[in-house]
Amino acid sequence: AAMASCGWARAVRGLLLDVSGVLYDSGADGGVPIAGSAEAVRRIKASGLKLQLCTNETQATRENFVRKLRALGFDVSVAEVTAPAPAACRLLKERGLRPHLLVHDDLIPEFAEVDKTNPNCVVLGDAAENFTYANLNEAFRLLIGMEKPVLISLGKGRYYKETDGLKLDVGAYMKALEYACDVQAEVVGKPAKTFFESALAELGVPPEQAIMIGDDIVSDVGGAQQCGMRALQVRTGKYRPSDENHPEVKPDAYVNNLAEAVDIILQHL
Amino acid sequence: AAMASCGWARAVRGLLLDVSGVLYDSGADGGVPIAGSAEAVRRIKASGLKLQLCTNETQATRENFVRKLRALGFDVSVAEVTAPAPAACRLLKERGLRPHLLVHDDLIPEFAEVDKTNPNCVVLGDAAENFTYANLNEAFRLLIGMEKPVLISLGKGRYYKETDGLKLDVGAYMKALEYACDVQAEVVGKPAKTFFESALAELGVPPEQAIMIGDDIVSDVGGAQQCGMRALQVRTGKYRPSDENHPEVKPDAYVNNLAEAVDIILQHL
Repeated sequence: AAMASCGWARAVRGLLLDVSGVLYDSGADGGVPIAGSAEAVRRIKASGLKLQLCTNETQATRENFVRKLRALGFDVSVAEVTAPAPAACRLLKERGLRPHLLVHDDLIPEFAEVDKTNPNCVVLGDAAENFTYANLNEAFRLLIGMEKPVLISLGKGRYYKETDGLKLDVGAYMKALEYACDVQAEVVGKPAKTFFESALAELGVPPEQAIMIGDDIVSDVGGAQQCGMRALQVRTGKYRPSDENHPEVKPDAYVNNLAEAVDIILQHL
Repeated sequence: AAMASCGWARAVRGLLLDVSGVLYDSGADGGVPIAGSAEAVRRIKASGLKLQLCTNETQATRENFVRKLRALGFDVSVAEVTAPAPAACRLLKERGLRPHLLVHDDLIPEFAEVDKTNPNCVVLGDAAENFTYANLNEAFRLLIGMEKPVLISLGKGRYYKETDGLKLDVGAYMKALEYACDVQAEVVGKPAKTFFESALAELGVPPEQAIMIGDDIVSDVGGAQQCGMRALQVRTGKYRPSDENHPEVKPDAYVNNLAEAVDIILQHL
């Protein structure tokens, strides 16, 4: 009976995995792995399936992010991470944009190769403690002073959970600047279609042979489905039972966690 | 010819005046009076017309605000000021709401009589330097923790101008919290209809016998007209020539400044 409902698991060649809430729960001292996830990553690789991490993380460079994941027991490499900052760098280069950065200090090295003199756009990330009154005013003044303001936002999350409580995410600050400047931000990161397409290109698998696995019903599941992928929601991380009644997005399946998803997928190979 | 186009000036018994941009330009050392405005206020009072200031100022108590205006030469009293904080206090009392305040330090005394224990709503003003990352997160966590979040915003301005540059106004932060908590703020202050109605009640004149004079095409002119008042836009303060092509709001007349408005009105008494 279980197998009958698992048509979604057929003809898979690659997996895109969200990280926070799927591999680990973020928090003090770098977070805690979700039970079975490190082993699940090893089983994916042993099976010959391709794997790419697809994350909206913007509080660290990919190098530091991977270092943290490896310390938690995950066998992953920098090349296996698709994250908003490198995607933003490509976009800036393509369009000759020179950013003013309002991002986390630890993300700044990702923009080392980008010309930041005489800015003609603002790039907004989850700046956390850098979201001061002065810094937000500075970004605002630059935007409002542009003939055609360009605001690039590394994600549009509303909030996230850390061990010391909920935190406003980049999306809230994006909305503040959008309203003040009467502009619409360009979002790099999930759920933007171009971001999933980049991840698929790095995975080397077409959308109909890929599955996205995430805990966010809108950014992970909805975004991936918009790109023609199948998508699973795990019941870990920020998953809430009310997600199963979401008015617009319905995952191809729910799984209790990454380990269960991998169990089912490997049975169908 | 000038008189023929001034039908709007007939049958007037009272005036509502916006303050910043009409009486004075705010800035360092308390601001600079607009030429002719102090004399215009005296002439209004001498004529027997009623007068009420109708402002979205939330960076000072009315007492301190009036002290500043008097120092600039304006013959005004606290009773002649309609401002968002007292209106919010009435609303809180009527509905049994206990606010968490995210406002400017200098505004806090306006809420002295309000029970602020165990908050069941958030009141947001132009907190300026108090718009820190920590304070915004605190307001957010309180809201998201409420079964039905109540966010009351003292205005919804996008930005304002000070001598050291443009500053994000309360509306931008309101949008950030609205998005993060998936709520709609209740706006106290212009252009809210209830706020103009309070000002008219304090003026003691029905809307059809009152004229609003302001520099903001939407908050002052549009808001007052929605209440059945006539409304003039002055060509001082934040007025811009492009306001004269506003797609939705058309003032009953443009005047160069408050002094000119008073000239015309007094000729028709």
